[in-house]
Amino acid sequence: MPMGTAVNIYETGLDKNAANFAQLTPLSFIERAASVYPRREAVVYGAVRRTWAETYARTRQLADALIKRGMGPGDTVSVVAGNIPEMFEAHFGVPMSGAVLNTINTRLDAEAIAFILVHAEAKVVIVDPEFSEVTDRAIKMTGRSMLVVDILDPTFKGGRRVGGITYDELLAEGSPDAGWRQPADEWAAISLNYTSGTTGDPKGVVYHHRGAFLNAAGNIITWGMPAHPRYLWTLPMFHCNGWCFPWTIAAASGTALCLRAVRAEPIYELIKTEKADHFCGAPIVLNMLANAPAPLKEGINHKVKVMTAGAAPPAAVIENMERLGFEVTHVYGLTETYGPSVVCAWHDEWNVLDASEKARLKARQGVRNTMLDGLMVANPLTMEPCPSDGVTIGEIFMRGNNVMRGYLKNPSSTDKSFDGGWFHSGDLGVMHPDGYIEIKDRSKDIIISGGENISSIEVEDVLYKHPAVMEAAVVARPDEKWGETPCAFVMLKDGAETTEDEIMEFCRSHMAKFKAPRTIVFGPLPKTSTGKIQKFLLREQARSLGA
Amino acid sequence: MPMGTAVNIYETGLDKNAANFAQLTPLSFIERAASVYPRREAVVYGAVRRTWAETYARTRQLADALIKRGMGPGDTVSVVAGNIPEMFEAHFGVPMSGAVLNTINTRLDAEAIAFILVHAEAKVVIVDPEFSEVTDRAIKMTGRSMLVVDILDPTFKGGRRVGGITYDELLAEGSPDAGWRQPADEWAAISLNYTSGTTGDPKGVVYHHRGAFLNAAGNIITWGMPAHPRYLWTLPMFHCNGWCFPWTIAAASGTALCLRAVRAEPIYELIKTEKADHFCGAPIVLNMLANAPAPLKEGINHKVKVMTAGAAPPAAVIENMERLGFEVTHVYGLTETYGPSVVCAWHDEWNVLDASEKARLKARQGVRNTMLDGLMVANPLTMEPCPSDGVTIGEIFMRGNNVMRGYLKNPSSTDKSFDGGWFHSGDLGVMHPDGYIEIKDRSKDIIISGGENISSIEVEDVLYKHPAVMEAAVVARPDEKWGETPCAFVMLKDGAETTEDEIMEFCRSHMAKFKAPRTIVFGPLPKTSTGKIQKFLLREQARSLGA
Repeated sequence: MPMGTAVNIYETGLDKNAANFAQLTPLSFIERAASVYPRREAVVYGAVRRTWAETYARTRQLADALIKRGMGPGDTVSVVAGNIPEMFEAHFGVPMSGAVLNTINTRLDAEAIAFILVHAEAKVVIVDPEFSEVTDRAIKMTGRSMLVVDILDPTFKGGRRVGGITYDELLAEGSPDAGWRQPADEWAAISLNYTSGTTGDPKGVVYHHRGAFLNAAGNIITWGMPAHPRYLWTLPMFHCNGWCFPWTIAAASGTALCLRAVRAEPIYELIKTEKADHFCGAPIVLNMLANAPAPLKEGINHKVKVMTAGAAPPAAVIENMERLGFEVTHVYGLTETYGPSVVCAWHDEWNVLDASEKARLKARQGVRNTMLDGLMVANPLTMEPCPSDGVTIGEIFMRGNNVMRGYLKNPSSTDKSFDGGWFHSGDLGVMHPDGYIEIKDRSKDIIISGGENISSIEVEDVLYKHPAVMEAAVVARPDEKWGETPCAFVMLKDGAETTEDEIMEFCRSHMAKFKAPRTIVFGPLPKTSTGKIQKFLLREQARSLGA
Repeated sequence: MPMGTAVNIYETGLDKNAANFAQLTPLSFIERAASVYPRREAVVYGAVRRTWAETYARTRQLADALIKRGMGPGDTVSVVAGNIPEMFEAHFGVPMSGAVLNTINTRLDAEAIAFILVHAEAKVVIVDPEFSEVTDRAIKMTGRSMLVVDILDPTFKGGRRVGGITYDELLAEGSPDAGWRQPADEWAAISLNYTSGTTGDPKGVVYHHRGAFLNAAGNIITWGMPAHPRYLWTLPMFHCNGWCFPWTIAAASGTALCLRAVRAEPIYELIKTEKADHFCGAPIVLNMLANAPAPLKEGINHKVKVMTAGAAPPAAVIENMERLGFEVTHVYGLTETYGPSVVCAWHDEWNVLDASEKARLKARQGVRNTMLDGLMVANPLTMEPCPSDGVTIGEIFMRGNNVMRGYLKNPSSTDKSFDGGWFHSGDLGVMHPDGYIEIKDRSKDIIISGGENISSIEVEDVLYKHPAVMEAAVVARPDEKWGETPCAFVMLKDGAETTEDEIMEFCRSHMAKFKAPRTIVFGPLPKTSTGKIQKFLLREQARSLGA
């Protein structure tokens, strides 16, 4: 039998050409949505209702106007905006000009925004009136000249014009029939997202067209999403490009239901009146919805699917949402992985378990999504995978096409984060025997008490089970005897009453005693714009309580 | 405003590495299915039921055994088999060895199989007992030595051993824990499918890992496929790799319900007992199912989705299937486009139309799927797109990542098919004002009568509306006066009676008179293995009737 041919017959005369190779880009999704479903609703925002044909025309105008003003590959266009139609359009129009979209966290102060504008070398800044003051101050701090574009939003009261041109005036400079720039390579940058980083300067995470295309398609597969979802924008679009969902909505020819204020009332309103059937949000948003007044929650007659991530959701929060009839999918990821790239894939045999057991399983972070190539829990020094015992804590590592290109102008952080050929998430977790990972903590959130590791998440999980607790966060408090002890910050539900002692006793009766908090502080918790509790502030506060 | 940076900041220090770049391959889907859903059913075939863990282990054994026998990139492994588990496994195990999977049309005669084995330079042939005789003859004709592997199927009566080793013995040579070969490049060949070509030697269409990955994922998006579909194998896996569905099923962690004989009885049986909820098939298969005895069709209590292509489905066939409660998606493609790459995407506003109007809209081929980059109807000489008027006939062209690499060892055909940067489908159609394409005919199937073009498909569509007609095909018959006239071959339904005159009158009253057939021939129609009516045989027969 002749084996091992000298010439590989499959490598001769079968090259790439214009007919059989195209650069992957999520921009192809809007072109398709506009050509197949031109009259379908693409964007809804109060009285504004635009079809895919209209939205695509506006994005082409935006791209053409930016090109005419000299924008192209290598240039950055920043946007400081809420979840409004212009923000959605920017996800297409900016990269269609060849430039890179930089959406900025709207909760940042002027100093942080200025840092980003300078670091990203932004040449254009598009500003929502809600953030006009802070952005204006930031731009002045940079001492640089840039094109500042004011979005006018008649539904928003307040703010002022801070730029030289309005968004609609900029659009008018472009033609709706103009061609736009396909990326020269699918590896080309499409967007730049700064991580909120609780210490040090923020790092600019660079996404490419290939990864955005794949993760946008992956969202559909992960969620088993049908055609034409009505997607409610409860997750900020500035956060990992809204987990790539602007592009997912275009791929599924769905409708983007825009929303400026993430409050229970308008969310339930849009679920009912606009038949929103999919939304994403941090556990804190789910918690708010679960604890909303009963009349708001009544009258939903269709299936609503929720994707949650951003922090390990307490099992009780998941349980509450499902009791309301919402189907919760728990996903996990980081800015560096295009948002969620890990999913707690459900097993039918879990359906027979009781609600709290189901919620416990669902609170695990899970397995790689179909687009992620690798996921492991390993020793960060040796890169040796931890045993799948559900106990041994290691660092979580990912690799694949939905891992960022790297940090902009930061080769040392980039190299460090990719050391050993895997992306270092900085999250600590375990691998369960069934191959599901579960986060135990951020490295810096582990509490070491008397030499024992205590997962702050585990303590929080117990606190959330207490009927009076609305929100809870646990950090380390310095302790002369133990080194550290758990210190819990707790916000109670409206009208609920309890005591420090009662809460501590509840914890001791639900977990190993050494893990129970030794200190309880009542009051509201400081949060980031994405609903993450700002533990670094709580840590400072705990330190100030003394050892 | 400083525009046009000298250095592109996004092209510095942001390179590909093992953490952020992976070659796209559908083989990643089975690895994921086996790790996330190890105990879920992957394959069902009579008494055989295997999980994803078992199936993945067997494919790794197959890959390892092939590697040990010297197979690798550039080598071809051919399979002549029905839709049985071994065929499904080969879609993973063969490319996991680095070799290329060549599935051979089981309806071919020994000469055609021998041609393929020689042209593909097959080193291994895996043989289903049903096709052992013809394959044995083919192998002998080649005069070459190759490893012949016998599949043993206790449920199949007949056939004999023609090889030196059984499939299970081959598997036993490999380890279920063995590593397997990732493609060095996503552009590497994964499979080789010979087009049945009614004239000339068959051409070997080469697929790559990237295209197979994308089209497999695209199937999920096109169909809005949920997790865990129960997919019934009515479409031959040898045909465009079953439209990439072996890989799609793995991506969705579904179940492959195998089926040797495509007859109404076992199909309805598996829909009912195994709760099959998705299947694909040529219109002829749908027609057979729609015309099955009533008791077979009763007792289906779940939603069944059907994808059909392979010929333009007569509107009446679609209407009949939908009346049975099956949801039909009409797709279109060629072997050269990984099977379906065009879909008749549905519009909700069409739901209010009457059944026949709905079926007429659904019989159109449609629009590009989310993975195809371009689709047009154009003048094949000038490559100028035809007006979107629904009337002007041109050739259908595609381009994108789900277009083949080319024809194996056939650079002239490859170049010709990609001339002008588009794949030349050879199908003739129109572009409707709404951007949907509709096939009017293969170039060679157009009937030119008195200088007027008559679409054979249009005439067939009318014939299928006649209550007595089971199947119909129309070809050109030479005519002294008109050049050509339409000649219809008709098979009547069981027990139905009608006359040549009555059929012709029916046609004249339902379409332009000049398009109505002038000749009717009653009797069964010759078909290919994929259910396509072999019009070249009918054309010969029509010619023999004289002018």
